[in-house]
Amino acid sequence: MDLELALRMTEAALKQAAREGALVSVAVVDGGGHLVSFQRMTGAEIAGPVLAPGKAYTSVAHRMATAELAPLVAPGGELFGLAGDRYVCFGGGVPLWADYGEGERVVGGVGVSGGTVAQDVACAEAAALVWRTR
Amino acid sequence: MDLELALRMTEAALKQAAREGALVSVAVVDGGGHLVSFQRMTGAEIAGPVLAPGKAYTSVAHRMATAELAPLVAPGGELFGLAGDRYVCFGGGVPLWADYGEGERVVGGVGVSGGTVAQDVACAEAAALVWRTR
Amino acid sequence: MDLELALRMTEAALKQAAREGALVSVAVVDGGGHLVSFQRMTGAEIAGPVLAPGKAYTSVAHRMATAELAPLVAPGGELFGLAGDRYVCFGGGVPLWADYGEGERVVGGVGVSGGTVAQDVACAEAAALVWRTR
Amino acid sequence: MDLELALRMTEAALKQAAREGALVSVAVVDGGGHLVSFQRMTGAEIAGPVLAPGKAYTSVAHRMATAELAPLVAPGGELFGLAGDRYVCFGGGVPLWADYGEGERVVGGVGVSGGTVAQDVACAEAAALVWRTR
Repeated sequence: MDLELALRMTEAALKQAAREGALVSVAVVDGGGHLVSFQRMTGAEIAGPVLAPGKAYTSVAHRMATAELAPLVAPGGELFGLAGDRYVCFGGGVPLWADYGEGERVVGGVGVSGGTVAQDVACAEAAALVWRTR
Repeated sequence: MDLELALRMTEAALKQAAREGALVSVAVVDGGGHLVSFQRMTGAEIAGPVLAPGKAYTSVAHRMATAELAPLVAPGGELFGLAGDRYVCFGGGVPLWADYGEGERVVGGVGVSGGTVAQDVACAEAAALVWRTR
Repeated sequence: MDLELALRMTEAALKQAAREGALVSVAVVDGGGHLVSFQRMTGAEIAGPVLAPGKAYTSVAHRMATAELAPLVAPGGELFGLAGDRYVCFGGGVPLWADYGEGERVVGGVGVSGGTVAQDVACAEAAALVWRTR
Repeated sequence: MDLELALRMTEAALKQAAREGALVSVAVVDGGGHLVSFQRMTGAEIAGPVLAPGKAYTSVAHRMATAELAPLVAPGGELFGLAGDRYVCFGGGVPLWADYGEGERVVGGVGVSGGTVAQDVACAEAAALVWRTR
């Protein structure tokens, strides 16, 4: 995950947020879940620096979109009870896959927080689209 | 819990994982919940180092398989609200019992994470079988 | 602290890093110490996501450059014993002051990590210069 | 960092510990600082599960042996004040370098804890030698 690509993904997420009328934070992490870039829109809530990197980390750690993880951690879901101080298990985190010769691996993730969950997901997907068409 | 036995349990869990086609992490802890051994299969997710030791710890702390703990921490369950940054309360953690002359005590635990919950449980049970037939 | 200005400060810090031949992470936080922007140069160490925001936070929390704080937290210094999991007390963090009609206040901070301390300080100062000449 | 190689490094560290008459824990982490393998010798202290992975993580995060980091974080050192809940800054952690076509990168680390610092360093070096001659 290089910085230049992380910034292009971030830009796409922020454009989507503008279209949605949402104020969000956008985090991009590498395959180890470590932050590569983060941007919080002027006026976006201070939860963003916790939740956006948390969603990005969670999507890497579990190799699935946090929106898909949400029902699994809900009461009755098979991962109910999932805990950990970096986990954020509702929509807005998307893993980024690549094949560098050893099969498909998760090599990073994007996390968006600050709007409604639907808005966060739309922004994260806009960023992930940049990744998939890089 | 000695290292040699922990490694034999780990080996059994990893063989089961290979049979299941799962990529898992396997943790074995002592009676204090402290790590004795840990192995993450090549390609297994980075959640493993958090969740496998967490399941092993939780199974020791509550003296029951984390699969049995799951319904207790669900809404309506008598442990609903259980929290703590090391707790992982879904299947894959199994306590290890022994009687060293003072009655049966939990003297360790095994935790597996990375597959489906059913796969994790099967791997943890394979490890626990090594313990029970030691 | 708005995002646009944070990004301009970040750009100045990264340009300075390029001149220094250093690979750094740059964090900008608001007056509450919360992240506004973060960028880790491609190839920069994974300590950056911890240390750069930590330096920025610390400079806001204590209203002084972390380079000035270093001797105060050393043995014999009046803040010896300062602790806290977000504190980073060596050079590379600089507070950002502004007077919005109520006297000078710290309204943000910048933190840089990844090079030598001297390089980190030079990069943070380059960012702070953008702030002071905004 | 694959598991097979991590286990070979661990074996070398444990053999060195036996030669030293020390009881140690040995951790191997990947390039993101996440645990790949861990083994605590029977009878080794319970600090091992905290300190050995901490040393391995720290050596990755700062790209230097923790023995080299020790003087830098001491009073008067330029990194005095370094903090973070995973940092362990005395000898026993060694970073592992590789060039996969993009120049030398730190792709993992080994950490040993339980003996004297000199013993821990000797064990970690024995593991690192396996890496360098892989």
